[in-house]
Amino acid sequence: MILLKENVMNQKARPLVEALQSHMNQKPVSFHVPGHKNGAIGEIAAHFSAWDQTEISGLDDLHAPEGAIAEAQALLADHAGVFKSFFLVNGSTTGNLAMVMALCEPGSHLLVAGNAHKSVIHACRLARVKPVFMMPEVHPHSMTPAGISPDLLEKAAGEFPDAGAVLLTYPSYYGHTGQMEDVVLKAKKLGLTVLADEAHGAHFSLPGFPESSLQMGADVVVQSAHKTLPALTMGSYLHIAHNQVNHQRIEQLLGMLQSSSPSYPIMASLDDARRYAATYSSEDAAFFMTKRNDLIKRLQRITRVTVIEPEDPLKLIIRMDGLNGFELQSACEEKGIFAELADPLQVLWMLPLLKEDSEVAWDGVIAVLSDIANEAEWTERSVISPLFTDEITTLSLYDTDQLPSSLVAIEQAAGKIAAETIIPYPPGIPYIIAGERMTKEKLKRLSELAGTSMRFQGGTHLIEGKIKVVQEEANE
Amino acid sequence: MILLKENVMNQKARPLVEALQSHMNQKPVSFHVPGHKNGAIGEIAAHFSAWDQTEISGLDDLHAPEGAIAEAQALLADHAGVFKSFFLVNGSTTGNLAMVMALCEPGSHLLVAGNAHKSVIHACRLARVKPVFMMPEVHPHSMTPAGISPDLLEKAAGEFPDAGAVLLTYPSYYGHTGQMEDVVLKAKKLGLTVLADEAHGAHFSLPGFPESSLQMGADVVVQSAHKTLPALTMGSYLHIAHNQVNHQRIEQLLGMLQSSSPSYPIMASLDDARRYAATYSSEDAAFFMTKRNDLIKRLQRITRVTVIEPEDPLKLIIRMDGLNGFELQSACEEKGIFAELADPLQVLWMLPLLKEDSEVAWDGVIAVLSDIANEAEWTERSVISPLFTDEITTLSLYDTDQLPSSLVAIEQAAGKIAAETIIPYPPGIPYIIAGERMTKEKLKRLSELAGTSMRFQGGTHLIEGKIKVVQEEANE
Repeated sequence: MILLKENVMNQKARPLVEALQSHMNQKPVSFHVPGHKNGAIGEIAAHFSAWDQTEISGLDDLHAPEGAIAEAQALLADHAGVFKSFFLVNGSTTGNLAMVMALCEPGSHLLVAGNAHKSVIHACRLARVKPVFMMPEVHPHSMTPAGISPDLLEKAAGEFPDAGAVLLTYPSYYGHTGQMEDVVLKAKKLGLTVLADEAHGAHFSLPGFPESSLQMGADVVVQSAHKTLPALTMGSYLHIAHNQVNHQRIEQLLGMLQSSSPSYPIMASLDDARRYAATYSSEDAAFFMTKRNDLIKRLQRITRVTVIEPEDPLKLIIRMDGLNGFELQSACEEKGIFAELADPLQVLWMLPLLKEDSEVAWDGVIAVLSDIANEAEWTERSVISPLFTDEITTLSLYDTDQLPSSLVAIEQAAGKIAAETIIPYPPGIPYIIAGERMTKEKLKRLSELAGTSMRFQGGTHLIEGKIKVVQEEANE
Repeated sequence: MILLKENVMNQKARPLVEALQSHMNQKPVSFHVPGHKNGAIGEIAAHFSAWDQTEISGLDDLHAPEGAIAEAQALLADHAGVFKSFFLVNGSTTGNLAMVMALCEPGSHLLVAGNAHKSVIHACRLARVKPVFMMPEVHPHSMTPAGISPDLLEKAAGEFPDAGAVLLTYPSYYGHTGQMEDVVLKAKKLGLTVLADEAHGAHFSLPGFPESSLQMGADVVVQSAHKTLPALTMGSYLHIAHNQVNHQRIEQLLGMLQSSSPSYPIMASLDDARRYAATYSSEDAAFFMTKRNDLIKRLQRITRVTVIEPEDPLKLIIRMDGLNGFELQSACEEKGIFAELADPLQVLWMLPLLKEDSEVAWDGVIAVLSDIANEAEWTERSVISPLFTDEITTLSLYDTDQLPSSLVAIEQAAGKIAAETIIPYPPGIPYIIAGERMTKEKLKRLSELAGTSMRFQGGTHLIEGKIKVVQEEANE
């Protein structure tokens, strides 16, 4: 049960509205999604009210487009250089669900990069598809998953020859691109359909940024326009590279999974974001890089601060000696600077996709970081081993919901099958998946994470050092 | 393929943005969803930009709520007088999918009122549940479906004893309440779980309005807060009446089907809409009814105009002698008045849920209707028989997607199995469902509808008088 404030049953109260107001009153600097940065970038996020319309004459219909929406989606496909593009109003979640449910046969295996978003696991469950998780490599600097290797893909494809497709996460949440180009090349050689969760790469292939997986040969690509382009939250794109893909089936699933009254502000912002990207010039990129590099230089001059630059220049990883990531995050939040996420080592910042005419004032940020560096007490930074999973992980059970389960101490769970999915959030990448037989190493790491202030979805009993496991005796 | 304007590949164009702008420039009067009427009602729809936030500290997390969102949902449950309530950000579509996928066993039958929204049919397909459609009664005044009878429910339950639940649509799109109370009573007697798609009844149980199905004993109820309360489009509620329902499973499905980055403006507007409803007084209701009755009186004084009043006072059905509904709709739109929908007989208006302090100016509306009544030429109003379906319709096939199909003339399709779902939209109630063996009468009516300017989802070949059917020989 949720613990509630005394005044909670006062029907005049608006807790969520109040929480949003008090956040905005801080005039916060945003280094997190959405890409429009509190409405500073892009036009649509500024207005709204009258924008919230419905399928009346002249406004077309997302589920049977033949007017403005059809044109807007055609412009998007033209910009992306693909066969067909779709606006998504329920986020990349819907895109991941639709491509897996549409293109994978029930009962078959799907090769999945281990740093997949939880929506990919959900997609497999809803499609009754068996995921084969391939362990991502760990980036030596950020110590976070950077994507899988071509060799591991070949190995997994060999072990599961019925798998017709591979689902890759590109770039990683932290902005790593890994060996994506070689992996896609290998997948093509192996005759696999390439599905790319490019949620964090909607700005890729713009001047100054890494290539999109579409340029590498991916067949279906999902992008969160709201994460790095100035679209509203839940606004995403789904791109189909060519007509050999069963696009009718994908379109059909989108029609089933998305609201029959899609949000016009979100769709309009997707149209606006596409134009923002399509008109992004190399001058804009040069302006952005100058501002970014200047910010990095000034940050690095601050004692205790280290800046790690992933391959995606839109992201920065910030560390401060003597503070763990969570401590650095809250110290910054106290002064109105909000990061995208924190982990035991560092915080992740997402920069705004500046154009030449963008306003930008980061002096305050430098001042805040300097203050923290001067004032913050040194604490013992918990040293954490990099995320570890078996090289290839399959599930022993594909639906544990209806099975009897019990709570056991984490250290006694080794060898047992998890009855709950545990997702550190953000980044929302599942660490334990319901149906997985858990290893000692993985559980050791889980105890460590549970000791930090990391937030989880699932794992409600981690605080008591317990985890839900399937009662196998009852199951035999 | 979509026909595109010549200028469509001009990346500087924003067709959807332009369509919205030109619509707003007309200063239109809204008689359609969403309930905030271009931002005139409720506070949230007025601001926005900075409202579009994400799961940063203090803003809670819809998928693991323990702060502001948990409190806001608790206030909603308190207002609705239920065990548990959820905010939905992908519309009532997600609510209908989640309750069917969570509570119905694959392969089992679900009793479904024949005027169900398409999302209910989608829910059955995704849950692999077999829908049993019960023909709704036709309201003698509006000639539209008004809900099923208790006797038909009893008959269907007798024929399909494995069905554990019934899904009812209440009120109807046109605002009819039918025999809902007796139907729910009967369902309870039969031991059926009652799932209610109350998309058009989020304002029910407020002073002056009909009772919500929650008061009648429904177990799970989905409401589109954006349709009649001042929430943003895609903002809905799901209510669970008591804890005998498997609410964990429903919550789990909502976590899979909804975006992992839910829209804060939508959630905030749901919080705002709940307060709007919870503080709605009998004085507000009296003010609304006065304004409404005055509007009706003045409309009825106009020659040629007839006003039909469904049981939900928020809706009005308007007819004009000598014009069919579509002609009346476009005549009104030319003068900036937009209806919720039109059918061959009439247009449907949704009134704003006025409070005592609401601004309202409907003189322009009266003037426009009078002008049309004076100027519009009389045309032969196509006389259409009421929507006809068999008393109980089951599907012969539950997934026709992968089966070979062919196009045949509508009049030659009698006795064949439909390979496409055809949905007149609005109201979005499927008329032909893929997998259904079609009767002569139903196809006759389809030809009539195809002859009108009604818009369809699916049925792309109706214009050529053709329909997609399953090639059964190939299927045997």
